[in-house]
Amino acid sequence: MNQTILLLSGPNLNLLGDREPEVYGTETLDDHVATATAAAQRHNLVIEHHQSNDEATIIDLIHQARNRCAAIIINPGAFTHYAWAIHDALAAFDGPVVELHLSNPNAREPWRHISVISPVATGTIVGFGGHGYELAVRAVTRLLA
Amino acid sequence: MNQTILLLSGPNLNLLGDREPEVYGTETLDDHVATATAAAQRHNLVIEHHQSNDEATIIDLIHQARNRCAAIIINPGAFTHYAWAIHDALAAFDGPVVELHLSNPNAREPWRHISVISPVATGTIVGFGGHGYELAVRAVTRLLA
Amino acid sequence: MNQTILLLSGPNLNLLGDREPEVYGTETLDDHVATATAAAQRHNLVIEHHQSNDEATIIDLIHQARNRCAAIIINPGAFTHYAWAIHDALAAFDGPVVELHLSNPNAREPWRHISVISPVATGTIVGFGGHGYELAVRAVTRLLA
Amino acid sequence: MNQTILLLSGPNLNLLGDREPEVYGTETLDDHVATATAAAQRHNLVIEHHQSNDEATIIDLIHQARNRCAAIIINPGAFTHYAWAIHDALAAFDGPVVELHLSNPNAREPWRHISVISPVATGTIVGFGGHGYELAVRAVTRLLA
Amino acid sequence: MNQTILLLSGPNLNLLGDREPEVYGTETLDDHVATATAAAQRHNLVIEHHQSNDEATIIDLIHQARNRCAAIIINPGAFTHYAWAIHDALAAFDGPVVELHLSNPNAREPWRHISVISPVATGTIVGFGGHGYELAVRAVTRLLA
Amino acid sequence: MNQTILLLSGPNLNLLGDREPEVYGTETLDDHVATATAAAQRHNLVIEHHQSNDEATIIDLIHQARNRCAAIIINPGAFTHYAWAIHDALAAFDGPVVELHLSNPNAREPWRHISVISPVATGTIVGFGGHGYELAVRAVTRLLA
Amino acid sequence: MNQTILLLSGPNLNLLGDREPEVYGTETLDDHVATATAAAQRHNLVIEHHQSNDEATIIDLIHQARNRCAAIIINPGAFTHYAWAIHDALAAFDGPVVELHLSNPNAREPWRHISVISPVATGTIVGFGGHGYELAVRAVTRLLA
Amino acid sequence: MNQTILLLSGPNLNLLGDREPEVYGTETLDDHVATATAAAQRHNLVIEHHQSNDEATIIDLIHQARNRCAAIIINPGAFTHYAWAIHDALAAFDGPVVELHLSNPNAREPWRHISVISPVATGTIVGFGGHGYELAVRAVTRLLA
Amino acid sequence: MNQTILLLSGPNLNLLGDREPEVYGTETLDDHVATATAAAQRHNLVIEHHQSNDEATIIDLIHQARNRCAAIIINPGAFTHYAWAIHDALAAFDGPVVELHLSNPNAREPWRHISVISPVATGTIVGFGGHGYELAVRAVTRLLA
Amino acid sequence: MNQTILLLSGPNLNLLGDREPEVYGTETLDDHVATATAAAQRHNLVIEHHQSNDEATIIDLIHQARNRCAAIIINPGAFTHYAWAIHDALAAFDGPVVELHLSNPNAREPWRHISVISPVATGTIVGFGGHGYELAVRAVTRLLA
Amino acid sequence: MNQTILLLSGPNLNLLGDREPEVYGTETLDDHVATATAAAQRHNLVIEHHQSNDEATIIDLIHQARNRCAAIIINPGAFTHYAWAIHDALAAFDGPVVELHLSNPNAREPWRHISVISPVATGTIVGFGGHGYELAVRAVTRLLA
Amino acid sequence: MNQTILLLSGPNLNLLGDREPEVYGTETLDDHVATATAAAQRHNLVIEHHQSNDEATIIDLIHQARNRCAAIIINPGAFTHYAWAIHDALAAFDGPVVELHLSNPNAREPWRHISVISPVATGTIVGFGGHGYELAVRAVTRLLA
Repeated sequence: MNQTILLLSGPNLNLLGDREPEVYGTETLDDHVATATAAAQRHNLVIEHHQSNDEATIIDLIHQARNRCAAIIINPGAFTHYAWAIHDALAAFDGPVVELHLSNPNAREPWRHISVISPVATGTIVGFGGHGYELAVRAVTRLLA
Repeated sequence: MNQTILLLSGPNLNLLGDREPEVYGTETLDDHVATATAAAQRHNLVIEHHQSNDEATIIDLIHQARNRCAAIIINPGAFTHYAWAIHDALAAFDGPVVELHLSNPNAREPWRHISVISPVATGTIVGFGGHGYELAVRAVTRLLA
Repeated sequence: MNQTILLLSGPNLNLLGDREPEVYGTETLDDHVATATAAAQRHNLVIEHHQSNDEATIIDLIHQARNRCAAIIINPGAFTHYAWAIHDALAAFDGPVVELHLSNPNAREPWRHISVISPVATGTIVGFGGHGYELAVRAVTRLLA
Repeated sequence: MNQTILLLSGPNLNLLGDREPEVYGTETLDDHVATATAAAQRHNLVIEHHQSNDEATIIDLIHQARNRCAAIIINPGAFTHYAWAIHDALAAFDGPVVELHLSNPNAREPWRHISVISPVATGTIVGFGGHGYELAVRAVTRLLA
Repeated sequence: MNQTILLLSGPNLNLLGDREPEVYGTETLDDHVATATAAAQRHNLVIEHHQSNDEATIIDLIHQARNRCAAIIINPGAFTHYAWAIHDALAAFDGPVVELHLSNPNAREPWRHISVISPVATGTIVGFGGHGYELAVRAVTRLLA
Repeated sequence: MNQTILLLSGPNLNLLGDREPEVYGTETLDDHVATATAAAQRHNLVIEHHQSNDEATIIDLIHQARNRCAAIIINPGAFTHYAWAIHDALAAFDGPVVELHLSNPNAREPWRHISVISPVATGTIVGFGGHGYELAVRAVTRLLA
Repeated sequence: MNQTILLLSGPNLNLLGDREPEVYGTETLDDHVATATAAAQRHNLVIEHHQSNDEATIIDLIHQARNRCAAIIINPGAFTHYAWAIHDALAAFDGPVVELHLSNPNAREPWRHISVISPVATGTIVGFGGHGYELAVRAVTRLLA
Repeated sequence: MNQTILLLSGPNLNLLGDREPEVYGTETLDDHVATATAAAQRHNLVIEHHQSNDEATIIDLIHQARNRCAAIIINPGAFTHYAWAIHDALAAFDGPVVELHLSNPNAREPWRHISVISPVATGTIVGFGGHGYELAVRAVTRLLA
Repeated sequence: MNQTILLLSGPNLNLLGDREPEVYGTETLDDHVATATAAAQRHNLVIEHHQSNDEATIIDLIHQARNRCAAIIINPGAFTHYAWAIHDALAAFDGPVVELHLSNPNAREPWRHISVISPVATGTIVGFGGHGYELAVRAVTRLLA
Repeated sequence: MNQTILLLSGPNLNLLGDREPEVYGTETLDDHVATATAAAQRHNLVIEHHQSNDEATIIDLIHQARNRCAAIIINPGAFTHYAWAIHDALAAFDGPVVELHLSNPNAREPWRHISVISPVATGTIVGFGGHGYELAVRAVTRLLA
Repeated sequence: MNQTILLLSGPNLNLLGDREPEVYGTETLDDHVATATAAAQRHNLVIEHHQSNDEATIIDLIHQARNRCAAIIINPGAFTHYAWAIHDALAAFDGPVVELHLSNPNAREPWRHISVISPVATGTIVGFGGHGYELAVRAVTRLLA
Repeated sequence: MNQTILLLSGPNLNLLGDREPEVYGTETLDDHVATATAAAQRHNLVIEHHQSNDEATIIDLIHQARNRCAAIIINPGAFTHYAWAIHDALAAFDGPVVELHLSNPNAREPWRHISVISPVATGTIVGFGGHGYELAVRAVTRLLA
C-alpha cells in the first residue's frame, strides 16, 4: 500500500534554526518535519524523513522509494544547483515529486536562481518558510487523489 | 479591515480550459477562482479576482490594492518573463505576494525559465494545476496570521 | 463560414508613410490595407483590419478571432521583439498565422533580429514593402485551400 | 506655435513620495511637475504632463505630440528596460527628446543598466532627484533655441 | 534583356519529397521548379534552375548571373547558416535577391535560427511549403516592375 | 569654506572643436570651461578646471579635492570605459560627483555603452553638448544646497 | 601483474533495465558487466566492477587502482557533467581510461553535452548500448598491447 | 543485399602518417582502411572507402549510399565542426552512422569540442587511433545484427 | 576553550607527492600537516586534520567544528569549483576561514579560475606550495588574536 | 630548389575591381598578381597564383605545395572566418604562411573579426590594398633568408 | 647582493585608513609598510616601498627591479582588473612575485573577481588586512631560501 | 613639409632583446628603430621614435603629431588590449596609422586577440619580428604616395 511520503532534506538543513535565521527562520528541521507529519496524518499518510549531507545517500533513498513510497517531497539545499545525479534519480521515480525551499532563491545570489531539480519536479513551492511543508503535503495529497 | 485577497490573472488566462489543455488542464479560470474563493471562505477571507490581458490594468489594480487588500496572488501568464513595470508595482505593495503558475515553467521552453516577478514575490507555487490556487490561499492565510 | 482574415498592425504602424520613409516607404497603412483587401477580394475573402499601439487590444482581437476568422496576418511592429503574451495568444489560434514585416529586420539593428512571434507563425514574409501584404494574402489563400 | 513641452511619466511614477522613498525621495509627482512647470514658465514655455502605466497611452501621446509639441521629456520608469515600441515612437518625433531618471539606474540592479530609450534620446539626465526636472527643462530650452 | 530569374537550390534539396516529409512535404524539387516556372510564365519571365551540393558551384552560378539575370531566388538549404562566401557573392549581385525556405527555421533547432544570407536578401519568405515558390516569383515580378 | 567645484576633463578632450566636430561639436574645451565658470559665478561658486590625458593625474586631482572642493564634475572621455582606478578614487570623495558627456554614448559603438564611472556618480548628464556644462553646474549647486 | 581492468559505473546505473528503457535499453547492469567480462576473458583479462552513487567511493576506487589495475573503463552517469574531483583522480591514473556511455549524450539535453571526464579520457565510446562494453574492453586490450 | 559499409574520410586525412604524427600516429590512411577491411571480412562485410577534401563530394557519396549501403562510418576531419550540410545528408540516411576520430577532440582546442555530426550519429568512437577503425566496424556489425 | 584549528583537505590531496609533482610538488600531505602542526604549536594551537574525498564528510566536519574549533583552514581540491554545499556549510561557521591552494589556479585551466569557496572565506592563500600551510596558520593566529 | 611562392586567392576575389570598390579598390586581381610577381622577381622568386571559390581546390593546392613551394601567401576571402579545413591544411605546410587582406576586417562587420587562418599564419598583413601584395612578398623573402 | 624586496602599492592606496575603513580597515599605508619592514628585518631583508597612482611609474619600478631586487610584493589596487601592461612587466621579472589584497575581492562586486595580475604571480594572499603584509614577506623569504 | 613618420613603442618594449626572447626575438628596440630608419631613408623620410610605458605620454605624442607628422606606426604593446584613450587619440589623427606587432597575438593567450587599436588603424602588420618595421615603413610610403 503506497501510503508513505518520502521527505528528503539536503545538505546543511540539519542546522536550521541555528544557521542564518534572518534567511531561514528560527524553526528547526524537527519543527518542519512535525509540521509535515501533522499535515500528513490529517490525510492518513505517513511521513518518512531523512536528512543527509551526502548526495549518494539521497540518491539511494530515492531509489529505495521506488514502488514503496507514493510521493517525494525534497528540499535539496545547495544540491539544488549542481546535483544532476539527483535529477536523474528523481526522473526514475514514478510518483509526484515536490521541490521545496524555505526562502525564495530568486531573491538571493544569482547562482541560487538555477535549479537542476525543477525540470523533474511535478511542482515547486518556495518562500513560505516552515509553512511550505504543510503546503507541500497538501499538494501531494491532491496529486495522489 | 484588511480581509481581501487580490487575485490577479495575466494575459491569455481567460482561455483556460480551451487553450493547450495538455499543458494547462481542462479547468476554466472560473473553476480556479471558485477554488480560491472556497479556500478563502474557510478562513473568513474574500477573493477579489481580475483577469486582464493589459499590463497597465494589472499595475492599476496592484496600486489600488495598497492599503486596501491584505495580500496579492498573481498568475502573471506571459508577463512573467518581461513585465518589469509589474515588478515595480508589486515592490510597492506592503503585504505578501504569491506568484502562481499552473504548469512548471522550468520544464518548458528556456524563455519561460526567467521570471521578473519572482524577485518581489514572498513565495512561489508552480506545477500543481488548479490545486495551486488552494495552496496559494492557504499560504496567504498563514502569512497574514 | 470562416471567410474572414484578421489583419493586425502593431504599434507605430499608424504613422506609415510619414515615419522614416527611407526605411518603411511612402505608402500609408490605408494603402497597405487596400492592397490586402483587393487581393482578398480576388479570392472571395474579407479583410478585417485593426491597428493598435496596445498589446492587450491585440491579444483581445486574437482571442475574438478564434472560431470566427480563418487566418491571421500580423505585422507586430516593435512588439515582435518582446511581447510574449502575443506569442501565447497566437499559439491558441488554430488557423494559419502569417508574420509580415515591410522592411528586413535582419538587415537592421541587432535587437530587431529576434522575433518572439516567429515560433508560432506558420510563415513569415519580410522585406517586400507594401507588396508583402498581397503576398501574405496569397499565402493565406493557399494555406486555407 | 511650438511652445509646449510634453512631459511623460511612465508606470508606477504616480506612487512617487510613497514608494521606496529611500530610493526615489519624498517628493510627489505633482511636486516634480510643479518644478518643471515653474522652470518652463521662466522661458515662456508650457508643460503638458501625462502619467500613465500604459505603454499604448504613452505611444499615443508621443504620436499626438508630433507637429504640436516642441520637445519631449520622458521618465519612462520600468518601460526604460523593454518597451521597444516607445523607442520606435520617439524615433518618429522630430524635436529633442530628454530621458530623465530620478535615481541613478547604473548604481542599482543589473537589469536597470539597460535602456532601450537612450539610443533615441537627444540627452539623458539621471540621479538628481526632483531637480532633474528643472535641468531637463533647461536643457530643452537650450536645444530649442 | 533581363528576363531570367536564377533559381538556386542548396544542398540536400534534391532529396525533397523523400527526406523528412513531415517537415518539408511530399513534393519533389521538380514540383517546386514547375510551380516557379508556371508563375514566371504568367509574367513573361523565365526560370533557370540549378541545384548543387557544392558551395563553389553556387557561387559560380551567382557570379554568372551578374548582368545576365534579373533576380535570384535562393533556397540555400544548410548553407543558410554558415556559407559567408555565398553571402559575399550575393552582395555583388545588383538585382533583387529572395531567400526562400519551405519550413519555418525559427520553429526548429537553434542553429537554424541564424541566417548568413538574410542580411543580403531583399526579402525572405519562409514556412509556406511549395507555395513559397509562387510567392517568391510574385515578389520578384513586383520588385522588377 | 567648500566653495570650489573641481571640473575634470579626461583624455583627448583638449582636442575639442577640432576632433570629429560632427560628434562633439565645434566649441573648444575653453568654451566649455567658460560656460561652467559663468554658471558657477551666478551661484558664487568657483570652477577649478584641469584637463589631463593621464589617469594618475586625474586620480591625484580627485585625492587633493577631498576636504577642499565641494563637488566634482567629470567628463572622463575614454577613461569612462575602463579606468576602475578613477572609480575607486571618486568613491573616496565625499561630495557630489556629476558624470558628464557631450554626446550620447548609448547611440554610438557598443564599447561606449559601458561606464565604470556611473556606479559612483551621484548623477549623469549626457548628450547636450556644451550646454551640459551649465546643467552640471546647476545640478551641483542644488546638490550642495 | 597488471591484468585487471577496473570497470566503474556511476550514479543511477544500478537502475538500468528499469529506468527509462526507451533511452537506456532493457538490459541490466549485470548484463553489461557480463558482456565486459566475457570480452575480457577472451583476452585473458579480468574485469573488476563497482557501481556507486557516491562520488567519494568512485574516487577511492580510482586511487586504489593505481599500480594495481591496467586500465579503467568508466560510465560516469550524471557525474560526467560536474564531478571535477573524479577528473582529477583519473588524471592521476597512469593507464588508459575509456569513457563509456550507453546512449548518445550529444543527442539529448544541452547539459548532457558537457563532459568534465573527456579531457582526461584516452578515448570515449558512446551510443552503442550494451555493445559499447565489449567495444571498450577491446579498445583497452589494444591500448595495453 | 545491404552488405557494404561506406567508410568516409574527410579533409586532410589523406595526409595521415605524415601530418602531426604526435597527434594522429604514424599509420597511413591505407593502413586504417586495411584495418577496417580486415575487420569487415571477418563478418562477411565489404568496406567501400572514399576520401575527399570536398564537402560536396562527401554529401554526394552519402546520398548514393541510400538504399545501397548498410551503414556509414565517417571520420569527418575538420568538417566535424561546421559542415551542417553533411549533418543533413546523414540525417537522410536510414542505416546506422558511426562518427570516428583518431584523437580525442575534447582534449584539444575548444573549437574541436563542437561536433555538428554527433547529433545524427548512432554512436561515436574517439581517441583510440587506428584501432578505432576495428571498433567502429564491430559496432556496425552489432547494430546490423 | 577554542584552541583547535580544523584543517581540511579535499579530494585527491591524499595523493600529494605522487600526483603531478611538477604542479603540486614532491611533499606529501603528511609533510604539509606537519608544517601546519609545527606552526600551530608555536602559538599554542592544535591542528586537527582530516582529508576526505567525500563532500558530505567535509560538510559534517565543518558542522562539528561549530562552537568547538576556533578556525578552519581548507584546501578544497577540486571541490573548489562546484561544491556549493560546502560553501553553505562554511557560511554557517562563525570563526575565520582560510582557503588554501598549493598551486596558483589562475595560472591553470579556465575551470580552475572559479572558486565557490572564496565568497565565504575570510582570506585566501595560493601558490606557495607547502609553505602556504605555515602562512595559513599564521594568518589564523592573527585573526584569532 | 624551393624558389616558388604559392599565392592563393579565395572566393569572390576574381571580382576585384568590380565588387564594392569603395572597400577593395579598383585594381583587379590581375593587377595584384602582377604586383606580387614584380616584387618576387626582384628577389629571384617565382609567383604561382591560383584563385578558387572552392574550398577543396584550395586545400588540394596547399597539399601540392608541400615539398614543392617555399612559402604560401593566402588571401582567404570569406573562407577566413570558418574554413577550418584550410587551417588544417596550412598547419601541415612546413614553410612560412602569410595571411593577407586588402581591407581591414577589424573595421568591418563583427564576423570578419574572427580569422580561423591567423592561428596558423606566420604573419598577417591587412588594410594596405594592393600594396599588401608587395609587402607580403617582401616578408616572405626575409622569412626565407 | 639581491637582498631587497620591492613593495609596490597601486592607485588610491595612499588613502588607506581614510577611505572606506569598513572595507580596508583603519590602518594607514605607512602602518602596512612598517609591518612589512619589521617582518623583513627579522630575515635580514630590506623593503623598498613605492606607492603610485600611475601605471607607467609602476611599470618603470618593476623594470628597475630586474637584476636588483630579489622579489616583488604588489598590491595593485584597481589596476588588478585591467592593467595588462603591468602583467607584461611582471612577466619579465625573474624573481618571485606575490599579489596582495587587504580585502577579499571575491566577496565584493563581480568586476573585482577578475585579476589580470594573478596569471604572472607566484602566489596570492587576500583578505587578511594589514597582516597580509607580514604573510607576504614571510612567503617571499621562503621562496628565496 | 610632412616628411616625418612618428614611430611609437608602447609599454615594456624597452626590454626587447632581454624579455622572453623566444617570443620577441633577440633584437633590441634600437635595432628595430634602426631598421625603420634605414627603410625610411631610402624613401627620403625621417623616423621620429618614442618609447613610453605611459598611456598619457603616448596620447600627447599622437596629439603633437597632428599637422606635423605624415603617418604613425605604433606598436602599442599591452595597451593594444584596453587603452581606448589611445584609440580616440589615433581617431583624431588624419594620416595613415599602421599597427605593428612583433609576434602574432592571435596565436597567444585569448586576451591578446582583442585589439582596441585595430578599428582606427589603416593597416596592421603582425608576426614578422623586426622585419615588420621595414614592412610598416614601406606600407606608409605607399599610403603617402
